[in-house]
Amino acid sequence: MDRIARIDMGAAGGPKVTEEPVGQYAGLGGRAMTSIVVATEVHPLAHPLGAENKLVISPGMLSGTTGSMTGRLSVGCKSPLTGTIKESNAGGQAAQVLARIGYAAVILEGKPEGDDLYKIIINKDGIKVEVDNSLKLLDNYPLIEKLRQEYGDKVAYMSIGSAGERLMLAASIACTDPELRPTRHCGRGGVGAVMGAKRVKAIILDDEGMKMRPPKDAEKFRDANRKFVEGLRKHPVTGEGLPAYGTNVLTNVLNEAGGYPTRNFKTGVFEGGAKLSGEAQAELETRRGGNPTHGCHRGCVIQCSGIFNDENGNYVTKQPEYETVWSHGGHCGIDDLDAVARMDYMDDNFGVDTIEMGVTIGVAMDAGLAEFGDSAGAIRLLEEVGKGTPLGRVLGSGAEITGKVYGIEKVPVVKGQALPAYDPRPIQGIGVTYATTTQGADHTAGYAIATNILKVGGDVDPLKTEGQVELSRNLQIATAAIDSTGMCLFIAFAILDQPDTFQALLDLLGSFYGIEMTGDDVVALGKKVLSAERDFNTRAGFTKHHDRLPRFFYTDPIEPHNQVFSVSDEEMDTLYNW
Amino acid sequence: MDRIARIDMGAAGGPKVTEEPVGQYAGLGGRAMTSIVVATEVHPLAHPLGAENKLVISPGMLSGTTGSMTGRLSVGCKSPLTGTIKESNAGGQAAQVLARIGYAAVILEGKPEGDDLYKIIINKDGIKVEVDNSLKLLDNYPLIEKLRQEYGDKVAYMSIGSAGERLMLAASIACTDPELRPTRHCGRGGVGAVMGAKRVKAIILDDEGMKMRPPKDAEKFRDANRKFVEGLRKHPVTGEGLPAYGTNVLTNVLNEAGGYPTRNFKTGVFEGGAKLSGEAQAELETRRGGNPTHGCHRGCVIQCSGIFNDENGNYVTKQPEYETVWSHGGHCGIDDLDAVARMDYMDDNFGVDTIEMGVTIGVAMDAGLAEFGDSAGAIRLLEEVGKGTPLGRVLGSGAEITGKVYGIEKVPVVKGQALPAYDPRPIQGIGVTYATTTQGADHTAGYAIATNILKVGGDVDPLKTEGQVELSRNLQIATAAIDSTGMCLFIAFAILDQPDTFQALLDLLGSFYGIEMTGDDVVALGKKVLSAERDFNTRAGFTKHHDRLPRFFYTDPIEPHNQVFSVSDEEMDTLYNW
Repeated sequence: MDRIARIDMGAAGGPKVTEEPVGQYAGLGGRAMTSIVVATEVHPLAHPLGAENKLVISPGMLSGTTGSMTGRLSVGCKSPLTGTIKESNAGGQAAQVLARIGYAAVILEGKPEGDDLYKIIINKDGIKVEVDNSLKLLDNYPLIEKLRQEYGDKVAYMSIGSAGERLMLAASIACTDPELRPTRHCGRGGVGAVMGAKRVKAIILDDEGMKMRPPKDAEKFRDANRKFVEGLRKHPVTGEGLPAYGTNVLTNVLNEAGGYPTRNFKTGVFEGGAKLSGEAQAELETRRGGNPTHGCHRGCVIQCSGIFNDENGNYVTKQPEYETVWSHGGHCGIDDLDAVARMDYMDDNFGVDTIEMGVTIGVAMDAGLAEFGDSAGAIRLLEEVGKGTPLGRVLGSGAEITGKVYGIEKVPVVKGQALPAYDPRPIQGIGVTYATTTQGADHTAGYAIATNILKVGGDVDPLKTEGQVELSRNLQIATAAIDSTGMCLFIAFAILDQPDTFQALLDLLGSFYGIEMTGDDVVALGKKVLSAERDFNTRAGFTKHHDRLPRFFYTDPIEPHNQVFSVSDEEMDTLYNW
Repeated sequence: MDRIARIDMGAAGGPKVTEEPVGQYAGLGGRAMTSIVVATEVHPLAHPLGAENKLVISPGMLSGTTGSMTGRLSVGCKSPLTGTIKESNAGGQAAQVLARIGYAAVILEGKPEGDDLYKIIINKDGIKVEVDNSLKLLDNYPLIEKLRQEYGDKVAYMSIGSAGERLMLAASIACTDPELRPTRHCGRGGVGAVMGAKRVKAIILDDEGMKMRPPKDAEKFRDANRKFVEGLRKHPVTGEGLPAYGTNVLTNVLNEAGGYPTRNFKTGVFEGGAKLSGEAQAELETRRGGNPTHGCHRGCVIQCSGIFNDENGNYVTKQPEYETVWSHGGHCGIDDLDAVARMDYMDDNFGVDTIEMGVTIGVAMDAGLAEFGDSAGAIRLLEEVGKGTPLGRVLGSGAEITGKVYGIEKVPVVKGQALPAYDPRPIQGIGVTYATTTQGADHTAGYAIATNILKVGGDVDPLKTEGQVELSRNLQIATAAIDSTGMCLFIAFAILDQPDTFQALLDLLGSFYGIEMTGDDVVALGKKVLSAERDFNTRAGFTKHHDRLPRFFYTDPIEPHNQVFSVSDEEMDTLYNW
């Protein structure tokens, strides 16, 4: 990971690859790399789909090592959905493979003339960019099937489906899992449309002949990793809840807390919640010969993923995540896991963000395009996205655009990005994160649910305003750092609660790079990343006025707690004061 | 004009009318009234289509008098297209009639439940609001025909077509002309969608039994009006160019100046310009038994409007304005006046802004939905708007949304509103207005073309940056004042060049209200209006970063002058320093 590759897709005479030492970006990885490159090199007023935008792909600081949980790949750019800087990360195999090949970042620049479609092959011999128009408008599953016939099973694939090619604002970038299913997505912010604008359909990552990245202090690294894994295994969330039920363990929890946004944020409890729950899902998966406990990348010890089969035992999709089960389920008044699984497959196949897509369908239901609870209607709407019809293009543009096109007042977005599966009125902390993060509404940016609801890392009353800004601030700083390491964010549950597990993480970083690493260094890294992102957004025209929730959260109380969001603007505006 | 009526469309038990003295808004009219009411009473973060927004309808300070040119009606609200405050004004008969009935403003508030559609009847006995679901989804021409059968020919009508009912962001509010054609539109900013959100389909204004508003000093008023009319008649623009050729006199002028944006702003000269010109249009109208010289309201001495017939001598539409001929013509590479006239009729009928609609079709052509120059294709696209299909809804949402839905990089909008018919690269002054006005891209807000191109009110070189900010500032201040008087903006040509005509305007205002009126008072009024608007926008989240043109104007030079827009950000940011 001592090189950066730049691929100028708009070079005269065809795409041109250049390589350079990491230079000024030395030591960065993951979100720190993508955000600092974008903030440094992209004009803040650049059109996100234009030649001036860049798509920065970066494995985490510890990706490609024998360290556990280090499989996150970051993708960064100026977002066509939000207009802000964007970092979107995914699991799967891509980060590990790219890191082992030796690239700290691959940066797609420029924009080709014409409508040729390209694939990029990255291996030990370097980088090749080839025209392959036979891939045009293939969706992710058939695309990967076709590429496997050419490049085999021992590689990792990144790709866009038809949505990315069509430049839809909800388009994602898919990364393959260990079984080469295109199920792990850099979902948020329309990063797939940026890849599509650069006319890159797929990236084939082949680490044949490459080795694991060696730590400076191998023994200390091994020891730290052992303690780190022990810590994850002993924490109830990472050792029990997530392995058994996946992220969908949250459905019952949030529904009981009255914070489960139902039928486009009209109430906080879904009467069909139990039917969607992780418990029900795991039971169904096991009964049908699927698997509720599976890792999205090699080296994962949490194994929160799974396999969802149909009633005949045939693969439908990977285990839908909590956010997906919510967005396509309760948010649309749908309590049918089979329908949700089918839509999860469609999202992965077309290459769209499941959160944006499900929220959009709920908004479309408010516009009368289908009834709440009508799963066949929801699937019919989603099919339009895959066909690229005018209606499909509207829906594929996300919730905000759909709301504007259909004149809908209640559109749950911040900075153009759909809200995830937690209502900010009964859970005020997550509202602060939605409003203030540099990314548009994003739960992962500062997961206050941990402390508001799960009581991890302390206990801050979700119904009160006190302490929420401080909580969100600290979580946002920690998250920006974790997103830079290549570590899965779920390690946060264990490191927030268990000082020895946090120390093991510090030791993993320290022993790998041969430096002394303290908690203060992690905080400094997080602040550095957030500051770069915030500065980019400021230069792009964002102000405190954009750090607000949609107005209905301030004016319309929600059952059962009958509360509005009430953290004051003044307090929210202190989030970046550190 | 001593009363304000408020109609709460969302009142329990049905719409409720209340009346009050003008009170704190005494002395205001037109844009001053609409903008100051909106800035005072509407929450800056209100959803434009929600119950919190208000639609303020106000005749000008001199409307309803015997003064010439006083027929402009202002409509104001928070705009669903731009998110800014919005004042959109139109000619036709409505302003005169409403003023004579005695209302300084009629304010539509709240939002009804259910899908009943309402009409409002305003006459000497007061205001009645009635459900009339027989009007649902009627377009403006058949709607007015139906209403005429009930309310006759001696009234004025305001109405929305299907686009307003469907809450399209390009929806306008139509006002009837003296012959009761729904041809004069408050076009910009989606004001028709706000009326549609309040479920008001039509307003019937009947001044039977009412008199002309009496001046305080009738003799002085009569004298001033005579001098004012003389001034308009002797100025070459208002006395010759506009009466003979209408606003479309500008096509040849702008094409010769290289500032006529062609095929979605790709070049500044349209080879088919002569075929679209006002000269060609007037000749065609006369030959077919139409009329190139017609007033949009009684009391107009400029008569820049006209009647466009087909080759069989049957009425097609009113004479399309320069902006419309450009947006549906050169902007789309179309040089066929018959096609333009047909689209002008369709726009008026559906109730959409001709500028927004034509620019949007040009953007759609860049997306490949039709070829540039394909008039049948353009008409086909526009038909979708009238049908309310998904594609029609996208197009009816305007250029910015269409660009996002189709992934188009080159979208000529400021604050979400489409640019009018003047390229800001060869005419830098108008670029300053587009960028900095409180209204989103709007030529009328500070018509620098006058001084940059027509050499009215001085001579500022359009290709240079010097003096443009000062020019735009002064024009924006003057315009805000004129838009408050009820006077047609075209009087500006004469009052900018002829001090005695400006004095006559001051005397009209002074003698009517029985006050001493100076040039400084006009400037103070303009500043007061602009300040209220700017303050609203600031509270709504707009900053200097939004006072910019789309980036391609700064990066892509345009033929024939091969220039980019180059007034510096720093200088633009001084526009409101006074």
